[in-house]
Amino acid sequence: MPASTAAALPSWSGALARAIERNTSTPAARYLQLATVRPDGRPTVRSVVFRGLRPGVLHPGSPDPALAIVTDGRTAKVAHLAAHPHAEAAWYFPDTREQFRLGGRVTAVGAMCGEPALAAAREEVWAGLSPGVREWHVCPEPGSVRNRGDRGGEEAGAGPAAEVMGGKGRGGSRPAGSAAPTSTATSTQPHSHFTLLLLDIEAVDHVDLGADTRRVWERQVGGKWIVREVWP
Amino acid sequence: MPASTAAALPSWSGALARAIERNTSTPAARYLQLATVRPDGRPTVRSVVFRGLRPGVLHPGSPDPALAIVTDGRTAKVAHLAAHPHAEAAWYFPDTREQFRLGGRVTAVGAMCGEPALAAAREEVWAGLSPGVREWHVCPEPGSVRNRGDRGGEEAGAGPAAEVMGGKGRGGSRPAGSAAPTSTATSTQPHSHFTLLLLDIEAVDHVDLGADTRRVWERQVGGKWIVREVWP
Repeated sequence: MPASTAAALPSWSGALARAIERNTSTPAARYLQLATVRPDGRPTVRSVVFRGLRPGVLHPGSPDPALAIVTDGRTAKVAHLAAHPHAEAAWYFPDTREQFRLGGRVTAVGAMCGEPALAAAREEVWAGLSPGVREWHVCPEPGSVRNRGDRGGEEAGAGPAAEVMGGKGRGGSRPAGSAAPTSTATSTQPHSHFTLLLLDIEAVDHVDLGADTRRVWERQVGGKWIVREVWP
Repeated sequence: MPASTAAALPSWSGALARAIERNTSTPAARYLQLATVRPDGRPTVRSVVFRGLRPGVLHPGSPDPALAIVTDGRTAKVAHLAAHPHAEAAWYFPDTREQFRLGGRVTAVGAMCGEPALAAAREEVWAGLSPGVREWHVCPEPGSVRNRGDRGGEEAGAGPAAEVMGGKGRGGSRPAGSAAPTSTATSTQPHSHFTLLLLDIEAVDHVDLGADTRRVWERQVGGKWIVREVWP
């Protein structure tokens, strides 16, 4: 990889950072939609919460940022990504009327990850989560059948989906049989279900309606980025 | 199909209608993210504008509503859908903290459609579009390389992407060589590029964070819907 490529962040990351900065007043601007492919070849998509850009975590020596998302390792998307690691995220910023589409491969970093740099990234992201978000890892398996008799309370926003869309993750409505959430909430050690997803961004499509522009970036085999301007 | 199934809208459509109604104060709540599969098997996703639910249009005699989206027939998603008709939409409602995931097959209804009911639906949806949205069908091919020298003006929000994300579609920044937009804007005849996408919804996943519930519906072969409650 040429030194000039490794020395600077790709220009799309500056545009994305500006969009994030300019949309902080809208909480929903932290949500993006991550598309994956099911084992049967059909597409699927769900809302996830942005958990930061981490330069160089997947390519030591390169500044290319990976997009971080957190999830429960028992969710369907983790199984889908194990079979088909390609994903694309659509991220719409309502205040500035911009859309970014970010495509690439996802690396799932779970409790069994033996790569020190990735395991460290997982611990760092865990350390930055609120106690409420940490608690949802002790919830029943997402997507499993729910028996209303299991329900121990009436509080809302407890499960992994609550994290995905900004819930408080209070855990109070979970079955009494679940592990007590308190230790998980305060532990510096990530819960065994906690999984960090790192999207290795290989292609970016940025539409800016205010400027009436659309730019498409692609990472070449050697790591160099090319950009072209296309019609929106 | 049993008469009892055909007689009533599926219960998910009532939940979706309520979410739409309760989120009208947020313009971005009209946008959803549509995931498709590329010819190489990778997933892709982009924001689109909700254009209504049309009961029975794909299954005469059934009340099952199809989700309507409009697009330019030259966009990549129309080519993708021709090869892989399965799609899934993620629709997040920020005011009520709900997410719907709507999966199924897409029927693309373009100018050459010979099915009278579908061609009529295409004309009806065209008739309901604003002149600004109609104009974007005379724009250069979306995604084609843009030469800045082509640009005839400085107005923003002209292209198909503007429609997708709520732009005005004024058309003023398009090349002078484009067809005059005025006739398209006022024509009762849909532009040849105008394509109606109808998502035949076969599966629905509804997370309601306020109620801490998640329900999953699936349409059976005979047309009957089954619903189960699962953990968020």
